Amino acid sequence: MHIREASKEDWQSLWPIFREVVQAGETYAYDIDTTSEQAEKIWLEVPRKTFVVEDNGEILGTYYLKTNQVGPGNHVCNCGYMVSSLARGRGLATKMCEHSQEIAKALGYKAMQFNFVASTNESAIHLWHKLGFETVGRLPKAFNHPKQGYVDALVMYKWLQT
Amino acid sequence: MHIREASKEDWQSLWPIFREVVQAGETYAYDIDTTSEQAEKIWLEVPRKTFVVEDNGEILGTYYLKTNQVGPGNHVCNCGYMVSSLARGRGLATKMCEHSQEIAKALGYKAMQFNFVASTNESAIHLWHKLGFETVGRLPKAFNHPKQGYVDALVMYKWLQT
Repeated sequence: MHIREASKEDWQSLWPIFREVVQAGETYAYDIDTTSEQAEKIWLEVPRKTFVVEDNGEILGTYYLKTNQVGPGNHVCNCGYMVSSLARGRGLATKMCEHSQEIAKALGYKAMQFNFVASTNESAIHLWHKLGFETVGRLPKAFNHPKQGYVDALVMYKWLQT
Repeated sequence: MHIREASKEDWQSLWPIFREVVQAGETYAYDIDTTSEQAEKIWLEVPRKTFVVEDNGEILGTYYLKTNQVGPGNHVCNCGYMVSSLARGRGLATKMCEHSQEIAKALGYKAMQFNFVASTNESAIHLWHKLGFETVGRLPKAFNHPKQGYVDALVMYKWLQT
């Protein structure tokens, strides 16, 4: 299993992962009816970097890294991670998050922020805490969950420079 | 003094206000060297609505309103306000913020969020609190202030529906 930068040619492998995660509507602030074309722009074109996790030629996960706020906030980056349902429970999110922190530091970022973590996404929150992220904000009823209705969203943050 | 929707023709009056605020580097997450063309896109084209405060034909302030997160977060809007240095202390920010809350409710938004308020911007924080916003997050050293270095940024939030 290894992590490498994504190329435009990877999109056909990434789109099923993106679609599956976004159509569930439980974790990401994207429209559930986002088209493949829109998603490619969001995931591959807009971010500063996009990576894939590959195992025996198959793409099992992906993440992007971008600057979270320009100008006076441009030392903080933001990442988003997605894992194929076929590869859950194999530690991919941990691997990608650790990899993204190294990339972020190499690019000169001082901190990483997750802007909008659904408070119902307990496994993710547990994992980010384990990896050193703090919950620094709680947005009341900011996430409209398909089953649970309006739930809080968390802002999570980690200072990367030591 | 009245508030009306901005048109493309207003940009020549808005640009000096935007430039003045952004070049100070103390409040907004925009590059201090943002060009007029980029700023017009940011302030007039990307947002869902942009308004101006006009007094005797002169534009003294402006704000935008946009959806803060798409998909499961699209019931929360975000606004940004700018006042010309020639018109400070006349209550324009209060007027614009109250106006924006009415517009937001009319458009169906349930809450309003400010993502990145420099903790050094005490007058703004005081005003937002007075107008019913709560501090729901604190981003450690997320704002690079031109005089004070890395300072915290606040996330502020108000539920609009009663």
